[in-house]
Amino acid sequence: MTKIKTPVVIINFKTYQQATGERAVELARTCESVSKEFGVPIVIAPQISDLYRVAQAVDLPVFSQHMDPGEQGRFTGHVLAEALVEAGCSGTLLNHSEKRMQLADVELAITKARKLGLYTVVCTNNPAVSVAAATMNPDSVAVEPPELIGTGISVSQAQPEVISGTVQLIRNVNQDVVILCGAGISTGEDVSAAMKLGSQGVLLASAVAKSDKPAIVLKSLASSLRK
Amino acid sequence: MTKIKTPVVIINFKTYQQATGERAVELARTCESVSKEFGVPIVIAPQISDLYRVAQAVDLPVFSQHMDPGEQGRFTGHVLAEALVEAGCSGTLLNHSEKRMQLADVELAITKARKLGLYTVVCTNNPAVSVAAATMNPDSVAVEPPELIGTGISVSQAQPEVISGTVQLIRNVNQDVVILCGAGISTGEDVSAAMKLGSQGVLLASAVAKSDKPAIVLKSLASSLRK
Amino acid sequence: MTKIKTPVVIINFKTYQQATGERAVELARTCESVSKEFGVPIVIAPQISDLYRVAQAVDLPVFSQHMDPGEQGRFTGHVLAEALVEAGCSGTLLNHSEKRMQLADVELAITKARKLGLYTVVCTNNPAVSVAAATMNPDSVAVEPPELIGTGISVSQAQPEVISGTVQLIRNVNQDVVILCGAGISTGEDVSAAMKLGSQGVLLASAVAKSDKPAIVLKSLASSLRK
Amino acid sequence: MTKIKTPVVIINFKTYQQATGERAVELARTCESVSKEFGVPIVIAPQISDLYRVAQAVDLPVFSQHMDPGEQGRFTGHVLAEALVEAGCSGTLLNHSEKRMQLADVELAITKARKLGLYTVVCTNNPAVSVAAATMNPDSVAVEPPELIGTGISVSQAQPEVISGTVQLIRNVNQDVVILCGAGISTGEDVSAAMKLGSQGVLLASAVAKSDKPAIVLKSLASSLRK
Repeated sequence: MTKIKTPVVIINFKTYQQATGERAVELARTCESVSKEFGVPIVIAPQISDLYRVAQAVDLPVFSQHMDPGEQGRFTGHVLAEALVEAGCSGTLLNHSEKRMQLADVELAITKARKLGLYTVVCTNNPAVSVAAATMNPDSVAVEPPELIGTGISVSQAQPEVISGTVQLIRNVNQDVVILCGAGISTGEDVSAAMKLGSQGVLLASAVAKSDKPAIVLKSLASSLRK
Repeated sequence: MTKIKTPVVIINFKTYQQATGERAVELARTCESVSKEFGVPIVIAPQISDLYRVAQAVDLPVFSQHMDPGEQGRFTGHVLAEALVEAGCSGTLLNHSEKRMQLADVELAITKARKLGLYTVVCTNNPAVSVAAATMNPDSVAVEPPELIGTGISVSQAQPEVISGTVQLIRNVNQDVVILCGAGISTGEDVSAAMKLGSQGVLLASAVAKSDKPAIVLKSLASSLRK
Repeated sequence: MTKIKTPVVIINFKTYQQATGERAVELARTCESVSKEFGVPIVIAPQISDLYRVAQAVDLPVFSQHMDPGEQGRFTGHVLAEALVEAGCSGTLLNHSEKRMQLADVELAITKARKLGLYTVVCTNNPAVSVAAATMNPDSVAVEPPELIGTGISVSQAQPEVISGTVQLIRNVNQDVVILCGAGISTGEDVSAAMKLGSQGVLLASAVAKSDKPAIVLKSLASSLRK
Repeated sequence: MTKIKTPVVIINFKTYQQATGERAVELARTCESVSKEFGVPIVIAPQISDLYRVAQAVDLPVFSQHMDPGEQGRFTGHVLAEALVEAGCSGTLLNHSEKRMQLADVELAITKARKLGLYTVVCTNNPAVSVAAATMNPDSVAVEPPELIGTGISVSQAQPEVISGTVQLIRNVNQDVVILCGAGISTGEDVSAAMKLGSQGVLLASAVAKSDKPAIVLKSLASSLRK
């Protein structure tokens, strides 16, 4: 079973031009170098067609951005757990806000991933959904407080309850799940705020993957986690 | 723009265990070797996470099993044309019966693929849908006659009209699109029958990708095309 | 807020020919008559286009088979809570196995329904999903144990743990949610078994809605609940 | 088979609060009264749960906003052709931009509707998709030129080619299909422009269904058609 040390930074490469193909490999190398320099775990989630290439190139945990439930054999165009393992992945995001999954499929995917040793991060959009997700025993839940999505408000500026309230609710049903802050993170200051409020890491995308200078952003994030 | 010589054999690897990861590479090498020996174009469609690995390993056109429409940047877990190009793909299946697409998305994907030089094969389930697909100017339409899906009836045993009728209807609206027979193909005899009825190639999966001896099956298919 | 007395029988009319249009009204009247004769609450879930007609005709709680989340105004072809209220509905099934919903949408729909006083029954396919659903505070969870779906095994024949185990897990996270048995119910004997194992009612479809003599089946079910 | 005289005005009630439940009936009556006064065919498309109620109240063709393909029996929450007929509908919109359908399902739904005598209007988003839709022989195609969607530009202000070009392309493959203009219509002037450019009617929503004075808007539209 994949173990990820916390606090952790997960970088979602999305489908950014700056994080596709050879440029995904370059960005992964930058992440690897900052991870080693700061001794902070960084997990990267490139596009599915880049997974093998990136996993071959770096010594970091590589996660898929999505995984379909289901057994091998019947599907065309689906992304199954076995294929992710073969590609060198050690985990996957599930139910990202840009790739929502059916309730039953989230559970099926968590169970299948666990069987194959893949680490699961379920993205959730509010406290109630976060609790529901946590009861299905994924390795991690990445909470995207609606107050922080597309509002330009960062975690460090927001009301503390936005994070701490959800953390408490999740802990009522699951003591072990790793809780990540999945929105409102751009700077080291945001990371510090998220950690103080009870999260054990962060999931972010554009601040790193669209940056002209991702190394600088990553160092700022990593140094906040090292403190 | 990718050109595929006809008659062509396209092998859909689906998510078969025998065609995943390193075994996808092995199967691709078998396809390559038969393609060269018989001088017959073979196109392979491995799983998305295997595309780069397979494209690096063999000198055959590598197609994706699916492609999402949409522009780079906003999506998580999606499979965009730009990423396929970076992975070494030269084309994609669209609208496979196990991955049906919305009408508007089929058109968007064809148009986007054309812009990036990717070859498109739209899978269709009956004459009316085949004609509709053909009007959107994909490079190819792979017809899966309902009479041949899951019935155990092969093309060589079926009523000729099942194929020839659809071919005629498609030609009424599109003189150039490559017409493939996408169901009922297991043997060289089936390939011969499909070609006689007006198709310019075949799309098949299990007969090759689940076979213990794919080289033997492939040689049988290829020798029928060479005649 | 709609209150439904338990034990309750919910009849899903699905899209059965025998339960469409005027025949839906007739079936609803049969349900009403048995409900009154036996003093047992029966809830009926006709097709969406029949909701108004049935709600006008009978004095029983009428539920929708599905509800989309979302606010009034932007949608075409969607089934919103406000429209259900206007049609005379007092509740809705959610996430039926033939109409699975995204995790986030299940939560949104529950919250929206609660605001408008609609009773919610979330259908779930296994213990883990049942618990997740129960944490989102629907009024009811209808458990469809996989051991009883499409196997021909009824609740009264199955291992008791299939139901009682799930009931216990749900109670750990939610003391109030009404737990229904949503599969394996055809006879009064099945209803009795389901009640003994801790469920507070049953959700069934074909045994009533496809029956030539629904009154007889309903009386058998109702008499088991009255005991 | 339902026949709709052209030129025709189709009003999509969407899920507007002003067009739900009893208010849907009122709006339908307004449409009926204008239709009779001006001798212009008006078709109304209320929400699915309002179909029966509205069809009972007025003597106008009532269309559904959506229809699922499929045969009676297996589905929960689906909207099948048979149920629409029972509810008093005489047609349906298909593939609306807010309810996109899979290519294969559009064809299945058209074929099923034809069998049951329901009139079909397939909504399309650009010339290529309009042509593809037209080859599947629906009764009507409602073209929503991207230049007119959400841009605030009305048909009467737009480049004429936006409509006339698509009309020509559709006529190349289908002489009989009724072509509607499905975007950019708010006023009688827009209707006149759409008709001059070759459309045989209009499909619109908010300009009528959200209006405080729908009768005035409808009279403006109808008087343009009568000229």
